[in-house]
Amino acid sequence: MKAKIFFWTTCIGLLLASPAEAAEVAIAIHGGAGTITREAMTPEREQAFREKLEEAIRAGHRVLSEGGTSIEGVRAAINIMEDSPLFNAGKGAVFNAAGQNELDSSIMDGATLNAGAVAAIHRIRNPIDLAIAVMNQSRHVMMIGDGAELFAQEQGFEFVDPSYFRTEHRWEQLQQAKAEETAGIFQPQSFFSTVGAVARDQNGNLAAGTSTGGMTNKRFGRVGDSPIIGAGTYANNDSCAVSATGHGEFFIRYVVASNICTRVAAGASVAEAGNAVINDILVKAGGDGGVIIMGGDGSIAMPHNTAGMYRASINTQGELFIGIYGEDS
Amino acid sequence: MKAKIFFWTTCIGLLLASPAEAAEVAIAIHGGAGTITREAMTPEREQAFREKLEEAIRAGHRVLSEGGTSIEGVRAAINIMEDSPLFNAGKGAVFNAAGQNELDSSIMDGATLNAGAVAAIHRIRNPIDLAIAVMNQSRHVMMIGDGAELFAQEQGFEFVDPSYFRTEHRWEQLQQAKAEETAGIFQPQSFFSTVGAVARDQNGNLAAGTSTGGMTNKRFGRVGDSPIIGAGTYANNDSCAVSATGHGEFFIRYVVASNICTRVAAGASVAEAGNAVINDILVKAGGDGGVIIMGGDGSIAMPHNTAGMYRASINTQGELFIGIYGEDS
Repeated sequence: MKAKIFFWTTCIGLLLASPAEAAEVAIAIHGGAGTITREAMTPEREQAFREKLEEAIRAGHRVLSEGGTSIEGVRAAINIMEDSPLFNAGKGAVFNAAGQNELDSSIMDGATLNAGAVAAIHRIRNPIDLAIAVMNQSRHVMMIGDGAELFAQEQGFEFVDPSYFRTEHRWEQLQQAKAEETAGIFQPQSFFSTVGAVARDQNGNLAAGTSTGGMTNKRFGRVGDSPIIGAGTYANNDSCAVSATGHGEFFIRYVVASNICTRVAAGASVAEAGNAVINDILVKAGGDGGVIIMGGDGSIAMPHNTAGMYRASINTQGELFIGIYGEDS
Repeated sequence: MKAKIFFWTTCIGLLLASPAEAAEVAIAIHGGAGTITREAMTPEREQAFREKLEEAIRAGHRVLSEGGTSIEGVRAAINIMEDSPLFNAGKGAVFNAAGQNELDSSIMDGATLNAGAVAAIHRIRNPIDLAIAVMNQSRHVMMIGDGAELFAQEQGFEFVDPSYFRTEHRWEQLQQAKAEETAGIFQPQSFFSTVGAVARDQNGNLAAGTSTGGMTNKRFGRVGDSPIIGAGTYANNDSCAVSATGHGEFFIRYVVASNICTRVAAGASVAEAGNAVINDILVKAGGDGGVIIMGGDGSIAMPHNTAGMYRASINTQGELFIGIYGEDS
């Protein structure tokens, strides 16, 4: 109960508004799944990912420990990954076929089942913030394109120049994908670095959020699972909270996030439910990726059917875990 | 087995490719749910709806009887409703706040779980056809806005002038909604006239499709449940096919279509599953609307929690049903 001690000593005022028996907080994050192997990784790059994952998970956990809501915890963790060029979300997002960064995000509140989602936005630094605004400040769940940015303007969001999102690494990835396309090669993307977070707050409320730049060289206004409530993101206090990363088309068809929550509601553990969907159903279908799951009791599972998944968690005991490769545990 | 006799006498060639024991075909359609009461309806208008519903259901059924796939049956029925100014899909779609008709659609194949969806398109006469092209001719599930229309162009779709979709009735609805908005009145829309179809073909394969103009006076690139696989449309041969119409935000949060299929997969009848979600869960949440459901065995349910729902079906016995008001059965 380190969190509680910290809470008492630093935040008496907030405590007065908190329940007598504060639930134990927990949080998990992902930064993408794919063919991540030790062979393909430099020690420097691995270290950079580990440090950023730790920074993000600690930021989210701090918010929760100080009495913040699960939505606020999810947001804090995702903002750090969106701001980092390491991940395919916010700054460092992949480029679409037109050479643009096109961003999607969604959020869901497990206490109310309220949800917000945005797709195909270009000028909002932290897409998860806009998804939260859609949830809280509109009557709608999903807004897309210019309309979503008009809403952002009315809500007082700051706009960044689209060049803010650009990194040379992603630009080179686009050139490579285009060269392969010209050569008639299509290899299903071997790496998906969408980011996401799931959290449980002191009131025992769950939330899930996801943010992405989608697929390199995507065309035609393609939208993946990340902004789709039920597919890439779902949260319900009665079952669990899920954020996904992977080959979005499969995650949409199998309604992955809500599918997992339905299994938890029927009595499966988060590990069993996640395993059934990620390592059985999706493997049979040929859908690569993974999820992070937070149970109503703060239990955590992070199943993935890829060689690796950038992931981290702090459980209800306050124990930190950071993983990259499949065998990390 | 009228269908079979028709089949034998008209279509020997196709029969050779069909299974020895052709499954009995069935189809159901909806044209929107809401506060449809006898008091508010003129006999002429009611007659017009009944005739168009009958035309659509018979067209879909004919395709199925002649050996067409469930996708083709769904498409035939939806095309007729999209082409009719009576329904909020294709011609006769509602106007958004910017005075545009902005169309969404989706399709799902219960045999393969392949799916296609488009949102925020403005120049394709039959949006369900574009959703089908996304499913069959691309690697993606969902395409939106200009990108979706670029794809349509590459696929050889004919474009219509956006004025094609305009009807005076819908234009007046927009003016009224804007006047109410200026006066500070917001009444959740009392009527949703999205169209949809679910079908079972001679191979026993299911499909579901949905097409809509969304909500009158919608802003900000709002996307409802109709193009969201899992929410407005879902199909799986192992359970059922569902198309929804209603207050889209609630249908997204409760992942209505897939939720119903999950219950059917767990052993509920289509009537029980539909009733649980539409008349219990959604009623408690305050979400108005209805669905049409086709079970793997051709059983049909059309639950709605609104005063009425435009609907029609032809069951495996070849029996035609057309309903408008809640008490119709």
